[in-house]
Amino acid sequence: MAFLVGTWRGEGRGVYPTITSFEYGEQVTFGAVPGKPFLTYQQRTWALDDQRPLHAETGYWRPKPGGRLEVVLAHPTGISEIEEGTFDGAVIELTATSIGLAATAKEVKGLTRRFEVVGGDVLRYEVHLEAAGQPLQGHLTAELRRVDA
Amino acid sequence: MAFLVGTWRGEGRGVYPTITSFEYGEQVTFGAVPGKPFLTYQQRTWALDDQRPLHAETGYWRPKPGGRLEVVLAHPTGISEIEEGTFDGAVIELTATSIGLAATAKEVKGLTRRFEVVGGDVLRYEVHLEAAGQPLQGHLTAELRRVDA
Repeated sequence: MAFLVGTWRGEGRGVYPTITSFEYGEQVTFGAVPGKPFLTYQQRTWALDDQRPLHAETGYWRPKPGGRLEVVLAHPTGISEIEEGTFDGAVIELTATSIGLAATAKEVKGLTRRFEVVGGDVLRYEVHLEAAGQPLQGHLTAELRRVDA
Repeated sequence: MAFLVGTWRGEGRGVYPTITSFEYGEQVTFGAVPGKPFLTYQQRTWALDDQRPLHAETGYWRPKPGGRLEVVLAHPTGISEIEEGTFDGAVIELTATSIGLAATAKEVKGLTRRFEVVGGDVLRYEVHLEAAGQPLQGHLTAELRRVDA
């Protein structure tokens, strides 16, 4: 998964029946640790109007034999996740298999992600979310471009 | 919890019935995000003999009213955690309330942590672990000192 390593930046859009739609700036960094079989992952988003910080995530991506992928994520909203899925060329599909909620976190029941790297330097993703009593449905879409770290 | 913000470095020791005892170097960084009610947390350890990377963790610490604390952690070993507990002055006690395991992760059944900041610039912690079919028992102890980031 070396094609992910580096820093990506761009913009996304969030929708959900229970919220007002919003647009955001985003930066994602994948890092390699010499001798370790995982990538580090850090993500943060910000409001396009005043750059105030919005969401963030941090964790590790663990590619496995046979095109399998395990992702471990921590969210500052009080949510931890294991996501599992596949990578096939530059297409990555993940489904949350474990969602841990802190006592004061809002409930998230399900989450899927699909990433695609196009032409080596465009990263598109979409996130589907099951939360707030709503069925699993589209929540986030974004397009990022590779930038020098 | 501003007394935690900064970078701490030192050494620790790991023991468990199923492994050979080991000593390690460690660096922990707590960061504040302006306007956000959590601290970022990054930790990494290395072997004292050849500095090869050993463990790492990343996540967020969420102090709550009444001295409560929620911690969300991702481990590159395929484990996610929610830990909950209390901070009372410079003593922090946490118990894992949710442990998520990726398909290929080794099972961890329970974990507690106790941190204490002594004199403002010494951070001591101990971790108790229930894993590998063993009951909850001491696993890690370390003493770190504040360093300029």
